[in-house]
Amino acid sequence: MDGDALAKAFVEHYYTTFDNNRAGLVNLYQDSSMLTFEGQKIQGAQNIVAKLTSLPFNQCLHSITTVDCQPSSAPNGMLVFVSGNLQLAGEQHALKFSQQ
Amino acid sequence: MDGDALAKAFVEHYYTTFDNNRAGLVNLYQDSSMLTFEGQKIQGAQNIVAKLTSLPFNQCLHSITTVDCQPSSAPNGMLVFVSGNLQLAGEQHALKFSQQ
Repeated sequence: MDGDALAKAFVEHYYTTFDNNRAGLVNLYQDSSMLTFEGQKIQGAQNIVAKLTSLPFNQCLHSITTVDCQPSSAPNGMLVFVSGNLQLAGEQHALKFSQQ
Repeated sequence: MDGDALAKAFVEHYYTTFDNNRAGLVNLYQDSSMLTFEGQKIQGAQNIVAKLTSLPFNQCLHSITTVDCQPSSAPNGMLVFVSGNLQLAGEQHALKFSQQ
């Protein structure tokens, strides 16, 4: 599996987990991970998942539009850039999102 | 100047250069830099600027909406995520853009 395919598989797994078992995202972060969410910096797997599980919606569905990846400066690391739509239960219009 | 302020100053400088002297962006990339542009991977300062200067518009104006930064795994490095609007000369509607 090449880098692009691996990135796509990871992204698919990440958002499927987000939409179906948000607390399970804890396994996809490390203690050194940082989430910047609308300007707020949140560090560490537990804190990040606490934030994500506290968002004011229960059901959501991410649809991925683009996945771009590049080698990162971390050994064997990759930088992945994702954009797409986020549909919330009960809302008529999807939100645009992007995440790296 | 803290990291956030430095990131904002860099982003402002980058897009001012993009809008006024696109060829001058060559000084803001390194040979190891990679640009992923609509799925195409382009490596090295010269190749990146050749791509950016060949885009099919001359005048453009970037307006920045958000700048988020995090420490990156590179020594003294930062990961900066930018979103905003891109107005092209002669076009009625601005395009949304995001870049990391």
